Amino acid sequence: MTTDRHMTRRELAEAQDAQDVLAPMRARFALPQGVIYLDGNSLGPLPHDLRARVTRTLDEEWGQGLIRSWNDAGWIDLPERIGTRIARLIGAPVQSVLAADSTSINLFKLLSAALALRPERRVIVSERGNFPTDLYMAQGLIAQLDRGHRLVLVDDASEIPAALDGDTAVLMLTHVDYRSGAMHDMGALTRLAHEANALVLWDLAHSAGAVPLDLAGADVDFAVGCGYKYLNGGPGAPAFFHVAPRHADAFVQPLAGWFGHDAPFAFEPEYRPAPGAARYLCGTPPILAMAALDAALTLWDDVDIDAVRAKSLALTGAFIDTVEALCPDAGLTLITPRDPARRGSQVSFHHPQAYAVMQALIARGVIGDFRAPDILRFGFTPLYTRFVDVFDAVSVLAEVLETRSYTHPDFQKRARVT
Amino acid sequence: MTTDRHMTRRELAEAQDAQDVLAPMRARFALPQGVIYLDGNSLGPLPHDLRARVTRTLDEEWGQGLIRSWNDAGWIDLPERIGTRIARLIGAPVQSVLAADSTSINLFKLLSAALALRPERRVIVSERGNFPTDLYMAQGLIAQLDRGHRLVLVDDASEIPAALDGDTAVLMLTHVDYRSGAMHDMGALTRLAHEANALVLWDLAHSAGAVPLDLAGADVDFAVGCGYKYLNGGPGAPAFFHVAPRHADAFVQPLAGWFGHDAPFAFEPEYRPAPGAARYLCGTPPILAMAALDAALTLWDDVDIDAVRAKSLALTGAFIDTVEALCPDAGLTLITPRDPARRGSQVSFHHPQAYAVMQALIARGVIGDFRAPDILRFGFTPLYTRFVDVFDAVSVLAEVLETRSYTHPDFQKRARVT
Repeated sequence: MTTDRHMTRRELAEAQDAQDVLAPMRARFALPQGVIYLDGNSLGPLPHDLRARVTRTLDEEWGQGLIRSWNDAGWIDLPERIGTRIARLIGAPVQSVLAADSTSINLFKLLSAALALRPERRVIVSERGNFPTDLYMAQGLIAQLDRGHRLVLVDDASEIPAALDGDTAVLMLTHVDYRSGAMHDMGALTRLAHEANALVLWDLAHSAGAVPLDLAGADVDFAVGCGYKYLNGGPGAPAFFHVAPRHADAFVQPLAGWFGHDAPFAFEPEYRPAPGAARYLCGTPPILAMAALDAALTLWDDVDIDAVRAKSLALTGAFIDTVEALCPDAGLTLITPRDPARRGSQVSFHHPQAYAVMQALIARGVIGDFRAPDILRFGFTPLYTRFVDVFDAVSVLAEVLETRSYTHPDFQKRARVT
Repeated sequence: MTTDRHMTRRELAEAQDAQDVLAPMRARFALPQGVIYLDGNSLGPLPHDLRARVTRTLDEEWGQGLIRSWNDAGWIDLPERIGTRIARLIGAPVQSVLAADSTSINLFKLLSAALALRPERRVIVSERGNFPTDLYMAQGLIAQLDRGHRLVLVDDASEIPAALDGDTAVLMLTHVDYRSGAMHDMGALTRLAHEANALVLWDLAHSAGAVPLDLAGADVDFAVGCGYKYLNGGPGAPAFFHVAPRHADAFVQPLAGWFGHDAPFAFEPEYRPAPGAARYLCGTPPILAMAALDAALTLWDDVDIDAVRAKSLALTGAFIDTVEALCPDAGLTLITPRDPARRGSQVSFHHPQAYAVMQALIARGVIGDFRAPDILRFGFTPLYTRFVDVFDAVSVLAEVLETRSYTHPDFQKRARVT
């Protein structure tokens, strides 16, 4: 590759940034100098509005308002208020979505409901490559129920249709795969599950805020999702759940805490579930984290999710093209689908030294992440990632691979979290 | 009562404050002007150290460090680090306590364990007056298990010994009653339960940070507690759990999320529980809320819990005495035990117009709370409550009652959260 070719590609990227309708959104985030952040699919960066909101929640609402802020500052309504914002973003009916707890906890609630609504059936169908906590929560629930339920795992998405049968209670899938970035056809798989009279539970961790979703149109029964990835709610932000209105009153979920009670402050000794999806709330919500997520979601008021998707595909497409142009014969194997309709907002490659390569990239200010055993993962987040970032990141990757600088001992040890 | 008598009592209070070894701690909190805050048993106020820590977590750890802070800022260790601080405060073995989720969620995990460890038994014994979410979680678990378990509720604490028998799997009690402030004898009741070969689960919501505790000495099996009351961790702060080391590896709890896995970042499809109490963790912890709680707990580094208890009893004793002196024949009936050994750190009275009286007090800057149906509740928190606050609060109460100002229509409507 020549300098001219570098210049040409970078100039093209600059031209794309100049025309990008989402470009002004980048200024809404606090981004460190000298870093190209391609890990917003793991942890979104800090929005300035969120910082201001948390400061206000600390100083005014908590510091000055104290206990009165449960009413006066609307703390009590945060799970529903956040849910309303997310419902709009994922095409779900208002009041079918609320923010609460973690994705894992919410999965347990919704899986409990799904199994209860198909009492004669014994199987949860999922993928072996699903995000592990989703599988763990299913295993925990099955062990607790001790009624002969089974988790049936397919090795490849193509096997899902054949796995659905008269014993399938629920099909539990993550919409966009956390490793490969491959995206399922939510509408088609939901239809297939419903044809088998099974329910569906979609994990939207890598979808919400990344791709347009239409839960109502796809007739989705249950969904969960994550507040700290594309929604930028902060590390370990509250998660959310969706319960289709037709199921909301059909079951009393087991994590029957006081915030899901019909009258929490009547202090009755008997649990009476709130009507609707609100019964899937449980304990006292973490207000600092809730306020943070609520503030982060205000960014979407000024954004068209179709424009986000268009830029996302342009970014991921440009990344694939540029890697293939600048890093030929470097041991990288693309595992993300080339077909734009089949990928989310990330690009992943196998590389035999993936862990060390990622450490070398991070040391040079290009932050993606490593996923065991040998995957380099790069997330593209249209609210703050520029086309020049794509080009510059690939340039650094090309240099790391060409110079084999990842073989330095500093990059060979194992991290605990990557 | 005469002005002289007022002067004398207030002067006595000032003298007590002047000698108070804990008095310097008050400056560590942001407290609003013109407010006497007697509701720290519901929501503790904002510690300055916490504010600084959350700001640093936002700006430096998240804003600059981004995903790297899971390792570099030690986010991954927060549940254990907080647990270690709390273990010291409640007399529990190190590593038997971790911070996670809400009190409700933690109750579900520990009750699941308790029932599994006594598989031949079918009864959870508790009090009808226990905090409702504790009862709700037991009801939710029992319904889900559907194996004939029952929740047996006594109406009075004196009935607990007789309720324990060969079918009791677990005695689940809140150590200090949220309404009356009455405190159970943890050691004696734990012994009684163990004599019946039952387990105990103590809810320390109104105990941790309020009274000295010795979980190890009392041989407690399981405990949960709250981060946002006497521990001042902020609204909806993470809760904590304690699992006695002898039980920690004996059961795999059903909320089997990835943070309780032995190797969360190996991304294995099969759940393998972490050794010890760490397997009671579940999903990704909310880092802003965890950092806040961790910072709030540093206040206890400089405090002797026995000095806290001594001041607490002096404050609650002074409050009872002063109310009885300044508000005779005002319709107040003390429901908190007069015996210091039998009360926590709050004082409660029945009053037929309790809701309106509390609204009138709040309007005058004295913040306690109302608990249905007719309870005025005042919490005393030795880290920031002064003896003059006790006197001034009672003076306002006396004025509200004497002038019957609580009969104003503004004070008659119902609040959602009080």
